[in-house]
Amino acid sequence: MRAAEALRRLGERRPLVHHITNYVSVGLVANATLCTGALPVMAHAREEVAEMSGAAGALVLNIGTLDERQVESMLAAGKSANERGIPVILDPVGAGATRMRTLAAERLLSELEVSAVCGNAGEIATLAGLSAEVRGVESIGGDAGAAAREAAASLGVTVAATGPVDHVCGGGRALAVENGHPLLGRVVGSGCASTAVIGCFAAAAGSADPETVAHALAYFGCAGEEAARTSGGPGTFEGRLLDALAAFAADPSVLSGQLRVSDVG
Amino acid sequence: MRAAEALRRLGERRPLVHHITNYVSVGLVANATLCTGALPVMAHAREEVAEMSGAAGALVLNIGTLDERQVESMLAAGKSANERGIPVILDPVGAGATRMRTLAAERLLSELEVSAVCGNAGEIATLAGLSAEVRGVESIGGDAGAAAREAAASLGVTVAATGPVDHVCGGGRALAVENGHPLLGRVVGSGCASTAVIGCFAAAAGSADPETVAHALAYFGCAGEEAARTSGGPGTFEGRLLDALAAFAADPSVLSGQLRVSDVG
Amino acid sequence: MRAAEALRRLGERRPLVHHITNYVSVGLVANATLCTGALPVMAHAREEVAEMSGAAGALVLNIGTLDERQVESMLAAGKSANERGIPVILDPVGAGATRMRTLAAERLLSELEVSAVCGNAGEIATLAGLSAEVRGVESIGGDAGAAAREAAASLGVTVAATGPVDHVCGGGRALAVENGHPLLGRVVGSGCASTAVIGCFAAAAGSADPETVAHALAYFGCAGEEAARTSGGPGTFEGRLLDALAAFAADPSVLSGQLRVSDVG
Repeated sequence: MRAAEALRRLGERRPLVHHITNYVSVGLVANATLCTGALPVMAHAREEVAEMSGAAGALVLNIGTLDERQVESMLAAGKSANERGIPVILDPVGAGATRMRTLAAERLLSELEVSAVCGNAGEIATLAGLSAEVRGVESIGGDAGAAAREAAASLGVTVAATGPVDHVCGGGRALAVENGHPLLGRVVGSGCASTAVIGCFAAAAGSADPETVAHALAYFGCAGEEAARTSGGPGTFEGRLLDALAAFAADPSVLSGQLRVSDVG
Repeated sequence: MRAAEALRRLGERRPLVHHITNYVSVGLVANATLCTGALPVMAHAREEVAEMSGAAGALVLNIGTLDERQVESMLAAGKSANERGIPVILDPVGAGATRMRTLAAERLLSELEVSAVCGNAGEIATLAGLSAEVRGVESIGGDAGAAAREAAASLGVTVAATGPVDHVCGGGRALAVENGHPLLGRVVGSGCASTAVIGCFAAAAGSADPETVAHALAYFGCAGEEAARTSGGPGTFEGRLLDALAAFAADPSVLSGQLRVSDVG
Repeated sequence: MRAAEALRRLGERRPLVHHITNYVSVGLVANATLCTGALPVMAHAREEVAEMSGAAGALVLNIGTLDERQVESMLAAGKSANERGIPVILDPVGAGATRMRTLAAERLLSELEVSAVCGNAGEIATLAGLSAEVRGVESIGGDAGAAAREAAASLGVTVAATGPVDHVCGGGRALAVENGHPLLGRVVGSGCASTAVIGCFAAAAGSADPETVAHALAYFGCAGEEAARTSGGPGTFEGRLLDALAAFAADPSVLSGQLRVSDVG
């Protein structure tokens, strides 16, 4: 689904997007979800996650500050989402940086039907079995296009590898997204926020197919471009990024001609 | 207690307000507390909550990202607060959305002497036993005035149901607060922040009577109106909301004539 | 190491700084780390902290929202850091406010080789065995210079006590830092952020000697001065503080003549 249609549906239906996420960027993630037009809810307790996912239009799993109990909650929520057939999006934050994170991402991918995996080049390369350097939660170098292609082939799901150019692969398609701005890399959690926006678009489309994922990233990237025009640095950029997401969501026609999604398959 | 007097006392005494709260809006909640003139502290460990509440002027319990251990800490802190007679404010975030949240709110209300309950129309209607739709942590429709009246009658405490107009009921009184701005509904955690401000005012007054609660919401709403004048959207609004809270707290006389609290009992 | 050299090295090497920290100011702490030029990672799970600290250039321990499990993770990460000889920085948030926090800070200092302790006057005085008033996480009065001197002597590490003037003592030296602005005291977590910046400088220098710590605080204070020039209050100040940290990090020569570090030993 293309961005304009996804944003229009979000504004009409206001689906719930259930996040089980890290406590570093959680505020940005929730606000990005709300600005995009969906209703965010963060709930992690084993006792309620299945019920919460049962009311949601999409589930977003982000392992940025993982611990063992959180993995159990992610599995319970994911199974509830799978039973209802709603999209499950995984952001494997820090996969490749520690054994625990790599194994957790692999376990989620193995025990759940994940619809899309979205991470930086290093995280995606790790899951594809390629060599990668992940320093903490940052990718050091790496070829995002190759990582996305390999991971999509080996995992059999839509895969987005973000970077200066975002690459989205799956189902035989390969798309490149050239929207964005270097300041996005200077704000903690901007990757998490872009995954949250993918969750919103997937809730609108009922699917996380490559076009839907690429358009979510293009919309997010356009907001980054707009925010960069008026911000004085990474600190003031964050608020303006949210303003831009909300402005584009309120009037998607503004995006016309700005989205730079191309088929590179 | 009216807003000007509450803010004056806060500036003089700087009471501690102890929050046991969610990890989504915790930064906004803490900053709203500090900008209003109280000293925020977030502490959730079972081992220290009673001691921390023992040094506080009010305790604010927010179940936005609840788990079982947190309920135990809330009960321990609440009992310490009750022994000392300091106000206990409950924000039943997401009551009605999952069974766990509804039961937790009911348990806190049953085992503690809560001074005031503050939530959106759906959450308050749920606690009053009325039918309500709560999607995640958002209320979908619902009559805030009826919810506040019913809940105040059945729970026997001050109840605030927030919305386009806030309704505060208790002890036979019913007040309406017409301050505020739609952008407040576009920022994650603005409801949590308004409850935090109620906690500050209750610490100043030594009570969460309807007038004190309504004036806290009116002050908060005025800050929202002021922030909306200069912000470019929900992202930049948050910082300006805190600026406005701080500016009004520094000079409460500016609020004169702006507070729209009326008796609707 | 002086500020210009530390910032230059950070930009070149981009070391990982591992934080085990509180969930109130964690976003500000992570962004301050990133704006200063290091790569932040927050990881608290017992299963991965040693591995994460094993890849880091410094470890920052902040007990702002402590619980028992977190102390165990801090000890495991700290032992890993000690084995590799990387600096360990402790921010004893709320020491003196509850018995649990005071004991946790003392235990970390006893079981780990901590390189530097950074807190407000009340927290530092508590650890020095002096009388102090800590209300929640705020110091009420107290002589920062005396606290830093006493704590440095009794603990045998570099100690920074922050306040209107910051005092840094250790190894027979006593430095005063006169940069900063009152608005820093109006933002929740600015103290945590200044400790994070000390962690970055220590990662660059490979040491948390008094000069390195004092220059980190001076750089942070200069950013506060710059931010205050254009912000409308504590809410908009936070974004501008991060902008200023990033601007100075990108061009440290701008700091020349602005750093007010003096020897008061």
